Amino acid sequence: MQRYFIDSNNWNDDEVKITNEDFHHVVHVMRMQEGDTFIANHPDQDAAKCKITFIDENQVVAVVEEWLEETKELPVHITIAQGLPKGDKWEFVLQKGTELGAVRFVPIQAARSVVKWDAKKQQKKVARWQKIVKEASEQAHRNKLPDIDPVLSVKDFVKQSASYDWKFFAYEETARQYPTVKLHHYFSQIEVGQSVMVCIGPEGGFDEDEAIRLKQNGFQAIRLGPRILRTETAPLYVLANLSYYFEEMR
Amino acid sequence: MQRYFIDSNNWNDDEVKITNEDFHHVVHVMRMQEGDTFIANHPDQDAAKCKITFIDENQVVAVVEEWLEETKELPVHITIAQGLPKGDKWEFVLQKGTELGAVRFVPIQAARSVVKWDAKKQQKKVARWQKIVKEASEQAHRNKLPDIDPVLSVKDFVKQSASYDWKFFAYEETARQYPTVKLHHYFSQIEVGQSVMVCIGPEGGFDEDEAIRLKQNGFQAIRLGPRILRTETAPLYVLANLSYYFEEMR
Repeated sequence: MQRYFIDSNNWNDDEVKITNEDFHHVVHVMRMQEGDTFIANHPDQDAAKCKITFIDENQVVAVVEEWLEETKELPVHITIAQGLPKGDKWEFVLQKGTELGAVRFVPIQAARSVVKWDAKKQQKKVARWQKIVKEASEQAHRNKLPDIDPVLSVKDFVKQSASYDWKFFAYEETARQYPTVKLHHYFSQIEVGQSVMVCIGPEGGFDEDEAIRLKQNGFQAIRLGPRILRTETAPLYVLANLSYYFEEMR
Repeated sequence: MQRYFIDSNNWNDDEVKITNEDFHHVVHVMRMQEGDTFIANHPDQDAAKCKITFIDENQVVAVVEEWLEETKELPVHITIAQGLPKGDKWEFVLQKGTELGAVRFVPIQAARSVVKWDAKKQQKKVARWQKIVKEASEQAHRNKLPDIDPVLSVKDFVKQSASYDWKFFAYEETARQYPTVKLHHYFSQIEVGQSVMVCIGPEGGFDEDEAIRLKQNGFQAIRLGPRILRTETAPLYVLANLSYYFEEMR
């Protein structure tokens, strides 16, 4: 059944209104009519099966038929922070990371990020990113819409991460300099409900200063398996690994 | 250190020749000179650290300085078979699947594949696919170059898969119709060295006839976690899960 994330302003007890782009999708793409049903996701509540009662030129009105108790959410809260990569790779990470269950994304202006962030374009870019995440959440049947932070410097990012239960960063040097600690050593210590920050460098990884800053602020350097993954593949590997441990092993 | 996959014809005991595209890469992109070193991967043997002894207009000659005993290969042999998806998604699966350790890829002309395979273009396409896989193997520091099959019908694919130790296919209906069996239930029964076939549908999944045929031929229907993954995300999830179980948990 088709699924829409609906802003809390458009809920009124058991009545829900669909407007703007989703209105277009319901009426012109899906060609739904009065009496048809869809699943509406409330940003902070359970999802609901809703039946359309009324359609006019710019809104679809529906009533809740049944509240659904279902969770598609990972039992740990995973944030992906990533040094801004080249091209459309950040958008790729947003889409695939949402499918795989991340709850928050933080883009970082890292020393080796080739892309230089243009603050003037911030508003437009962030709107596009939010659209990608919304569509991926609907497609993946998520209950929760992931948050996207504005682009941060490594320094500001480190400050904002202070409250996380677990903080990791992928560091290729780890694989070379030290005997390898397997991911399961760390992941098996994480408890259900805890928050986990996973930080991935841009192409070329974090530079030494950044690595030192991260380490000094409680980030644990990890190696992501024996093969060298591209920057945009790394967060997907971590998310799938945590899904396996928390969702498929118990 | 830069790494190249070198065809067995270009090896002569401890001497190795680099020609064609890799020649261009060594000489014009990396600007290596006599005395410089790189890692050469033999298709069937260990990799070797090699030193350049001679460069002329169309070849680089190097000698083995040291054979390297290293493995970056998953301890189980995973084949990804996939109903041909839309656009460049198959190429995406080849690249990311190689990074994540698959040893073989099989494209399938499935009932719901929107792309209709043009046999006339086969040679050109397969050459392009092989290039993607070669580059991804080098980047990921793999020891082995994955194989790519020609495009097969579901019927032929099923015949060719008879000898696999384990055969799975992702089937969304599984999640709806039956109590869910977790992936770990199956994966924990796989032994090191065994062969595993993982078959993923195109957009829209396998149709009922295909699902029946797969089941009748020993394919086990599996669900890939609680969220609905896009067709191109599904193989990455499986590969990362098997990597976690076989490489990061022991």
